[in-house]
Amino acid sequence: MINNMLKINGREYGRLYRYENGDLVTPWNVSASSAAGVDYDKLIVKFGCRKLESDLVERFRKVTGQEPHPMFRRGLFFAHRDFNIILDRKEQGKPFFLYTGRGPSSGSLHLGHLVPFIFTKWLQDVFDVPLIIQVTDDEKFLWKDITVAEVKKMARDNMKDIIAVGFDPEKTFIFNDFDYMCPPFYENICKIWKVVTGNQAKAIFGFTPNDSMGKAAFPAIEAAPCFSSSFPHIFGNKTDIPCLIPCAIDQDPYFRMTRDVATRFKFPKPCLIYSSFIPALQGAQTKMAASDSTTCIYLSDTPKQIKNKINKYAFSGGQASIEEHRLHGGNCDVDISYQFLRYFLDSDERLEEIRQQYTTGAMLTGELKKIAIDEITKVVVEMKERREKVTDEMLEEFLRIRPLKYKF
Amino acid sequence: MINNMLKINGREYGRLYRYENGDLVTPWNVSASSAAGVDYDKLIVKFGCRKLESDLVERFRKVTGQEPHPMFRRGLFFAHRDFNIILDRKEQGKPFFLYTGRGPSSGSLHLGHLVPFIFTKWLQDVFDVPLIIQVTDDEKFLWKDITVAEVKKMARDNMKDIIAVGFDPEKTFIFNDFDYMCPPFYENICKIWKVVTGNQAKAIFGFTPNDSMGKAAFPAIEAAPCFSSSFPHIFGNKTDIPCLIPCAIDQDPYFRMTRDVATRFKFPKPCLIYSSFIPALQGAQTKMAASDSTTCIYLSDTPKQIKNKINKYAFSGGQASIEEHRLHGGNCDVDISYQFLRYFLDSDERLEEIRQQYTTGAMLTGELKKIAIDEITKVVVEMKERREKVTDEMLEEFLRIRPLKYKF
Repeated sequence: MINNMLKINGREYGRLYRYENGDLVTPWNVSASSAAGVDYDKLIVKFGCRKLESDLVERFRKVTGQEPHPMFRRGLFFAHRDFNIILDRKEQGKPFFLYTGRGPSSGSLHLGHLVPFIFTKWLQDVFDVPLIIQVTDDEKFLWKDITVAEVKKMARDNMKDIIAVGFDPEKTFIFNDFDYMCPPFYENICKIWKVVTGNQAKAIFGFTPNDSMGKAAFPAIEAAPCFSSSFPHIFGNKTDIPCLIPCAIDQDPYFRMTRDVATRFKFPKPCLIYSSFIPALQGAQTKMAASDSTTCIYLSDTPKQIKNKINKYAFSGGQASIEEHRLHGGNCDVDISYQFLRYFLDSDERLEEIRQQYTTGAMLTGELKKIAIDEITKVVVEMKERREKVTDEMLEEFLRIRPLKYKF
Repeated sequence: MINNMLKINGREYGRLYRYENGDLVTPWNVSASSAAGVDYDKLIVKFGCRKLESDLVERFRKVTGQEPHPMFRRGLFFAHRDFNIILDRKEQGKPFFLYTGRGPSSGSLHLGHLVPFIFTKWLQDVFDVPLIIQVTDDEKFLWKDITVAEVKKMARDNMKDIIAVGFDPEKTFIFNDFDYMCPPFYENICKIWKVVTGNQAKAIFGFTPNDSMGKAAFPAIEAAPCFSSSFPHIFGNKTDIPCLIPCAIDQDPYFRMTRDVATRFKFPKPCLIYSSFIPALQGAQTKMAASDSTTCIYLSDTPKQIKNKINKYAFSGGQASIEEHRLHGGNCDVDISYQFLRYFLDSDERLEEIRQQYTTGAMLTGELKKIAIDEITKVVVEMKERREKVTDEMLEEFLRIRPLKYKF
């Protein structure tokens, strides 16, 4: 196994890339050695971010007066960097913004893509701040055998899916890199490029000398939107507005790099709140992959497809026979249907009930799958209904270079 | 001595960076082991470009009906790549454009900067085609300890100097990267990034792992303007218009890389015509360096400063005493005053007369220096007069995103 442990200025960069317990977590690959998935406690230590402890959830409740989102209170958003700074600013009425994004994929988004967006929409509602969504069509172009026209088409389709999550058009700016690239954005990209060496990028992202120049150049392009000066149409000439980034933890290398750079240019460091990965149907060793339709549930799947996929592929924590299951009970930690419910079932009481019944063997795998099918179908059908109403005109409005409705 | 001889797909890339006879020629450094300067014949072989033979100069005369510029007919522009293709297109009335540029420097341009611009202006007059001039303020920012505001200020001053050369505002688009960066330009940058590996860039440009990400990303930014689709306001949606690049030969690594990339994307390869380096006052081992005022004559130098610099610093090919000089004669090959005259004295007859008189000892070093001082002063004073007339409004016009006057 490769282990690029590299020390630069006394800091170990290699640990960001691959670490020794067999789990692999990079922005391009996630695989775990255990059926229960990635060991997130170890990952937090390795990445050097912080666990989102219950006192911070409590403080959130106090500052915002809002009940934390189920994904938040159930620890599915489980780690952070400086989330307390964002709560300080909320408390003091100081400005900040939300930034998230995705790399486009062909076809529809899947449930794994949906998680950070659902959470981000909820954060936008609670915090009432501007939201920036970056779609990295350039990344897709650089990594895959695909044309610019193809990735831009993909990006547009994906952006419509994102809009269907329900973002407020008066407070949300969506862009794809190929169409937004402009002087203020490029200036921040150059600032990042200037202070990170090739060696550091290699250690952080695991690039090899046979990777393209484009791969090596890209990290700065995902990092630059952290700085408010990349969006003068929204933030004017203000360079001191920090962002909060809700995303999956595999994106941490980008933002750890960005936080180092920010200090050099006297920009505020981005703050982060990280989710775990929604597991693939086959089990928590990998995450859903858009390129493999058997691993994931797409937002374009029909209720029948959802039913078939969960019944056929969803890894079960149940026992080999009904008799054994009644006797020993099932294992929710590895059961994918149960894991899905942790993300998408609203009621904590109902979730706990299901957990107890399945663990004791009172509930069978088929029954658990049925509940998961119903809940997932509900989410997907609702998304689909909203998606059908997203027009080209609505997309153009989200993409338009314009101020957002926001009091500084 | 480092010698990065690296083979990729059977091609030696290392030879582009440093080669074995002791001369060093990269876009950032030029040094020669001989007093007569860089061995250009060897350089041509190493770079894999072609010598500009007299038959091509003849063909130019025939196709354009114009007398070749002194720098051209005297072999100061001495090498090329596909210059014949440009002459074919001129003959057939097919479109092409000129592209050149420079990295900004503080203070005024010096004579070495002036050479490609004087020649480019002459080419623009002869060919009557659009001209694109790139000022790489981003490069300066990435390489030096300097702020974006400082390099942008520098770029503006330099662009005014460039305008003073006399370019036609109806046919010339000037831009600095920090202000022009835009989607069509960025799209071409990504195309280049995608197909050149880090290894290849390292071999071509000599980057080390401790160089910044920005240095590694930059070559594509100098390469992208070779493709007409970087300028839709000038070329519409045409992607098949080749460019001719007049520049000093140290820029060859960029365009050799670009030519490889062009094929991959079915863009025409850039064609090139390369000048030698105008030598530093101290001798042809190095070229003029803006950062060392004793090596060069700035366009802002007064007649008195020019006189003093040439008298004090210009390396002489003369003998140690008048008696010896009368007896043995001087050596024009290493005499910097004579070398300057090759660039800036119009009359071939007069130049040959001076050469003979100096070589035979009939002309003394002081007399030769006097002629050089007069000629250089004339060039600089004329430039200065034009420079004083360059206003902010004129600069804005050259920078403006607009179509150029040009029949496709």
